[in-house]
Amino acid sequence: MRILLIHSDYLRYKTKSKTKIAEKIEDEKKGGEFDNALVVFTAVEREDEKDADAIIESAVSEIMNVSSQVKPDNVIIYPYAHLSSSLSSPDAAKNILKGMESKLKEEGVAVSRIPFGWYKSFEISCKGHPLSELSRTITVKPKEEEKAEEEPS
Amino acid sequence: MRILLIHSDYLRYKTKSKTKIAEKIEDEKKGGEFDNALVVFTAVEREDEKDADAIIESAVSEIMNVSSQVKPDNVIIYPYAHLSSSLSSPDAAKNILKGMESKLKEEGVAVSRIPFGWYKSFEISCKGHPLSELSRTITVKPKEEEKAEEEPS
Ligand SMILES: [Mg+2]
Repeated sequence: MRILLIHSDYLRYKTKSKTKIAEKIEDEKKGGEFDNALVVFTAVEREDEKDADAIIESAVSEIMNVSSQVKPDNVIIYPYAHLSSSLSSPDAAKNILKGMESKLKEEGVAVSRIPFGWYKSFEISCKGHPLSELSRTITVKPKEEEKAEEEPS
Repeated sequence: MRILLIHSDYLRYKTKSKTKIAEKIEDEKKGGEFDNALVVFTAVEREDEKDADAIIESAVSEIMNVSSQVKPDNVIIYPYAHLSSSLSSPDAAKNILKGMESKLKEEGVAVSRIPFGWYKSFEISCKGHPLSELSRTITVKPKEEEKAEEEPS
């Protein structure tokens, strides 16, 4: 799994058109606005299908770790295929994204999950402090998480 | 090289603090606002150092190809290390990014390059049409460019 965490003044989104792998959604999920949000752009990878539970746990632990530092009011799981060239199946991706949402809820986090498989417009405002853009590679072995990507370029 | 191309209603940015690899910039580069912009988030990779000229040519050709379809008023080269876990040296990255800027200028494109090595705040509005988010892996052999990443998830 590759994640890109952006600490944002706001995130707004609207669903536009469906792709053939679009998740069925209620009307209230067709748009949203969140302030002081940690937006977690997430690409679920083929490798993650081997141990979904471990990946969910590891991703949530990393998100909680960043949250404890930047103190967002909202955590947003935003599916983002463009972070990887080795994607999982759409079903595996949906299950893992939903698993992350559930586990973060259990931890008491105000979490929202953005619909999967839709073209969406969005607006985001990245705060620009040193922890406001971080990327991580999440693997089943936490030791292999990449920790050296905090510098912009 | 990994690139993420976002067709945006607007991009705004402001430089905040420097990193130790920060490019020296004039005051006018400390912020900017661009409407109807194709923002090309770009990670220059280690592999690209082997043939910088070919990578520049291939990247520019891909950007011109997308531009011909989405017809932006501005093309923005935005350095973005978070798209890869195999980055080039900072010097190679700066040379390649500057090379892309020069070549796009030669092609008559209204291009701007965002400063390298600075923490920056930014706001972006992604249009949400099917070609408004595309990612590409650029290699020296154009045939190896990935063409199958147009679906969101
Ligand atoms: Mg605004």
